[in-house]
Amino acid sequence: MHLQSVGDIENLGNKEGVFDHQLFRKSAEIIISKLEKYLADSSTRGLALTNPYDLSQTAKDIMNQGQKNTATYNQEKLEAIIDLYIKTGIQVYSPGYMGRQFSGVIPLAGLIDLMSSIVNQPSSFYEAGPLPNVVERIMADEFNQFIGWAPDSFAMVTTSGGTLGNLTALLVARNEKFPQIWSEGIYALGDKYRPAIAMSEDAHYGVCRATGIMGIGENQIVRLPVNQKRQICIDKVRPTLEAAEKQGLNVFCMVASAGTTSVGAFDAIDELAQIAKDKNIWLHIDGAHGGSLLVCDQLRHKLKGIEKADSFILDAHKMMFLPGVCTLLFYKNKKKSYGAFRQNASYVFEKVPDIYTQFDSAEQNFECTKRPLIMNLWVLWALYGKAIFADQIEYLCQLTQEAYQILKHEPDFQTIHQPEVNILCFRYVPSNLSDNLLSDFQLAIRNRIKEGGNFFISKVEIDGINSLRVVFMNHRINISHFHKLLYEIRKNGLELISET
Amino acid sequence: MHLQSVGDIENLGNKEGVFDHQLFRKSAEIIISKLEKYLADSSTRGLALTNPYDLSQTAKDIMNQGQKNTATYNQEKLEAIIDLYIKTGIQVYSPGYMGRQFSGVIPLAGLIDLMSSIVNQPSSFYEAGPLPNVVERIMADEFNQFIGWAPDSFAMVTTSGGTLGNLTALLVARNEKFPQIWSEGIYALGDKYRPAIAMSEDAHYGVCRATGIMGIGENQIVRLPVNQKRQICIDKVRPTLEAAEKQGLNVFCMVASAGTTSVGAFDAIDELAQIAKDKNIWLHIDGAHGGSLLVCDQLRHKLKGIEKADSFILDAHKMMFLPGVCTLLFYKNKKKSYGAFRQNASYVFEKVPDIYTQFDSAEQNFECTKRPLIMNLWVLWALYGKAIFADQIEYLCQLTQEAYQILKHEPDFQTIHQPEVNILCFRYVPSNLSDNLLSDFQLAIRNRIKEGGNFFISKVEIDGINSLRVVFMNHRINISHFHKLLYEIRKNGLELISET
Repeated sequence: MHLQSVGDIENLGNKEGVFDHQLFRKSAEIIISKLEKYLADSSTRGLALTNPYDLSQTAKDIMNQGQKNTATYNQEKLEAIIDLYIKTGIQVYSPGYMGRQFSGVIPLAGLIDLMSSIVNQPSSFYEAGPLPNVVERIMADEFNQFIGWAPDSFAMVTTSGGTLGNLTALLVARNEKFPQIWSEGIYALGDKYRPAIAMSEDAHYGVCRATGIMGIGENQIVRLPVNQKRQICIDKVRPTLEAAEKQGLNVFCMVASAGTTSVGAFDAIDELAQIAKDKNIWLHIDGAHGGSLLVCDQLRHKLKGIEKADSFILDAHKMMFLPGVCTLLFYKNKKKSYGAFRQNASYVFEKVPDIYTQFDSAEQNFECTKRPLIMNLWVLWALYGKAIFADQIEYLCQLTQEAYQILKHEPDFQTIHQPEVNILCFRYVPSNLSDNLLSDFQLAIRNRIKEGGNFFISKVEIDGINSLRVVFMNHRINISHFHKLLYEIRKNGLELISET
Repeated sequence: MHLQSVGDIENLGNKEGVFDHQLFRKSAEIIISKLEKYLADSSTRGLALTNPYDLSQTAKDIMNQGQKNTATYNQEKLEAIIDLYIKTGIQVYSPGYMGRQFSGVIPLAGLIDLMSSIVNQPSSFYEAGPLPNVVERIMADEFNQFIGWAPDSFAMVTTSGGTLGNLTALLVARNEKFPQIWSEGIYALGDKYRPAIAMSEDAHYGVCRATGIMGIGENQIVRLPVNQKRQICIDKVRPTLEAAEKQGLNVFCMVASAGTTSVGAFDAIDELAQIAKDKNIWLHIDGAHGGSLLVCDQLRHKLKGIEKADSFILDAHKMMFLPGVCTLLFYKNKKKSYGAFRQNASYVFEKVPDIYTQFDSAEQNFECTKRPLIMNLWVLWALYGKAIFADQIEYLCQLTQEAYQILKHEPDFQTIHQPEVNILCFRYVPSNLSDNLLSDFQLAIRNRIKEGGNFFISKVEIDGINSLRVVFMNHRINISHFHKLLYEIRKNGLELISET
């Protein structure tokens, strides 16, 4: 790849215009070089948020810089855009970044995303995306090694994000139990037995949204109480469901979590599956965060009973370190997977798919135009196997345990839960802090640390009180970074106290 | 960029593992080179579909080739995967590709997709994606130059695909008219006045799906008849709506199309807006295909009245030549845009957003983790302005008119509609063809042409009879390719007749 002079590039103009392959190479060289440098930077840094009005002005200034004309190509402008894009975002590859459930991705996956953008194979139909559609089946079988369903009895479909995956599964559950809704609408049921969904007190907002979207209504959410570990309290499930029934609710689905957003708690799938079976209700597992533990021999036990769930999702853009988004949605019963967007799934027996259309996923996924989401995952899996995912997940979970042990021995820190995965919530409680300030104090520390620019951590409200929250997500973080974070927490906390 | 030997790469291993920046560069060089070659290939070719079982075996063979180990990097394997991915897909940059509503994208957009994958800025929240969130506002204003709403009175939000954009808008319409549904569910309305949605007979299947998803029921779709141009027949709208009301339906929303999927018909927005206003119903425009005509001075008139619509979408991954997906969802009334996932939009007055969170889009878009979809569009717009989009759209629409004129003068071809955009449907009707074979004959021709491998065209059923369908989507197609296609159609058609 030979980088030519700016003038050379600026005057590039031919009938191919912006589609020119040489222009592609020139732009590629600029972008690859900047990304390479970005990836090489292992410094500890967080995110100093830019004022949005200033940032907007900067973006507008770039737009107005130089003339707009298809025949010209302004390299400086492109470079300014790339620099701004990199600089203003969360530094996801930095060990200072411990804030959220997305991470510095495996860079090759980004390059496969580039491939997917250029070869442009929307993959709801085999015709448009042959390879993505067959490798989706292959990846389904690869994952099933860790689930254990009978071959060809189950289904896996990729979809654009966890919220869409959860909605799709809940639609199958609804249409399965109330097939008349799809055509006739919810009125068909009358007012006596309202369809309802049971879910953990800690369920993700996307799952709650689904009830509003589906016309069931958020009031028909039956909240299952959680225990001290923030898992669904098994003893209270049957009584809660029975109380709901007495109120005229028809609970057709129960949603459990494999890794809650707040603290990363894993519900007891095995025991919930027994209850769901007894009650004849659909069991869906929101494994957006923790479902990926399936690939870890050491940690798979957290998902014990997953093969008994009717459906579950996992976000490969979280714990499999892929770019957003890549959600895998699994169904125990393949036939039922066709029921999300239909009266029921019976039509699959009516039509005669040919060898091509039987690989279509358009009837199973919401999207008409769907990115070939599976390719990022499959290419890495094909090249390296599961080890690159499993090793990093295990490392991050181990690191979280280590951090937890450190906190337990520090009298000025309060632990809130024993971490099950790579999410750790805790509070800084110096002896001279009054109880009524506890919650605001955590928030203030979090904000000061963010502004300091060395670390980026998050906060979460637990039982009405804020706590600090770290998510260990990237390969560069080690325990020394956690020690440094604790130092910063103490320093900022004590400064805050002395300032008041 | 210096490509090292295979052995050199294979033995690359350090503590950064798959995250190593040098490994990134090496993989990038391989992929960029192959894509550059792919982009340079201007030959006329279609798609010879691979048998999925054979393809699956090929993919598995690649997986099993060489040992799986994080310490090794198998360049040959990566190359085999890339070659297979390119080879098996629709050749979207070839002038032989005239089949679907996606195209060879502007390559720089693919590189920006790579950027977005690596810098990883999920953009439902300003904190996680500062630049994407401010440029979304900038692009809203840029488009509004062609719409004409008062500054700050409207909203635009990106979302993951047209189906999701349509669903989101319909949820706003539903929640606006029936605010009790979100919490209480559809039962709250009783059975007497069922919410219903009016839409064209030719509405996209994703819009129909939305009624089933929302619990309204597909039976509550009120079909608006179309005229010979396949536009909603304006004279029949009021009588159809009134008939629906008499049946106890409460039509709260009307969906029109700006470019139907089948033939690219544009409904008369201006006239529909008057009816919607009179009837006090929400008007949503599905402009997935044709909404992009907004940027063309010559063609914008097709969208006359768009400023009167309550909401509309456009897919920039269709007629703005971007990778899938990038859907823009516009609302005339900014406040209402917050009502999709809420009881109503009033909460925005209750909470006090800070300067950062007021740029969040999480309350307006369905996704929690959302790709920074706007970046592909904004970077191109910032570098080149609207001309690169407008010029290509105008060229393709003009070419379609030219092709239509050619067909009109060929006695053995039957035109079905006067094209309004870049979609053209027609039939081959040689004199010795019997009428009862007409439909099957078109399908057989389409399939033979596909198998021939020179062209890729689609088919569509119109009034129960198949027709051939071409979509001119990429910059390399000119009228000579259409002439060659007609030659192939005749040749294959006559062969089919002589074979029977």
